[in-house]
Amino acid sequence: MPRVKKIDHVGIAVRDAEAAVRFYEEALGLAADHYETVPAQGVKVAFLPLGEATLELLEPTGPDTPVGKYLDKRGEGIHHICLEVEGLDELLGELSARGAVIGSGAAAPGAHGSRVGFLHPKATGGVLVELAEKGHEPET
Amino acid sequence: MPRVKKIDHVGIAVRDAEAAVRFYEEALGLAADHYETVPAQGVKVAFLPLGEATLELLEPTGPDTPVGKYLDKRGEGIHHICLEVEGLDELLGELSARGAVIGSGAAAPGAHGSRVGFLHPKATGGVLVELAEKGHEPET
Repeated sequence: MPRVKKIDHVGIAVRDAEAAVRFYEEALGLAADHYETVPAQGVKVAFLPLGEATLELLEPTGPDTPVGKYLDKRGEGIHHICLEVEGLDELLGELSARGAVIGSGAAAPGAHGSRVGFLHPKATGGVLVELAEKGHEPET
Repeated sequence: MPRVKKIDHVGIAVRDAEAAVRFYEEALGLAADHYETVPAQGVKVAFLPLGEATLELLEPTGPDTPVGKYLDKRGEGIHHICLEVEGLDELLGELSARGAVIGSGAAAPGAHGSRVGFLHPKATGGVLVELAEKGHEPET
């Protein structure tokens, strides 16, 4: 049985990740533990752990990227939430049959060896929901 | 020292909470454990626990309410995130001095005996952030 376990992260689209990190660190006492640029997604990401979840501050690397276009259209704000699941393939199959999945319904490679799919905001109450299944560490 | 502990909940503004609950229950296997109408805030809320957090689906009781106006302006989507904190008064005092707090900087009564304050989206990267400190159960 597929299972949704927790909120893995909340992705926040910002124009200036460093300025946003400064606010979350200085004013709220959080700490960015990791930065990453993902050229394929056109985004610079700062990761701030918070309980069992992470805040991800997403700065576009240019205007013609998904997050760049989001900023143009909506301004800064929450871009997506990611839920950690078990049984991703089965879940995406069911959700795809409901027309709730963006794309083919097949999982795509995500960060840190995870596999991910995205649900359509029309199905979820206006929220871009990422479903992620953690990767198993390769045996050595 | 004030401390931000976790994401307490994510508030999602929807036009029809029952329809949204149906999707999250049937398609994602979550379960609403509680419904509440809060006349003072003009909102019907369905609560769906998820790990250490909760998804709150917020349906306005009318168009002339904060969530009703939000839907008119932005459509359905994430309305706010709430972070659980310790030391709320000290934190709101510091944040108020930065101009980051909506209103007077004093905590207001929240749900379930909690006390809350709201941070301005201009300070947080476009996100309406609620800070909540859990109430202590009265001694009996």
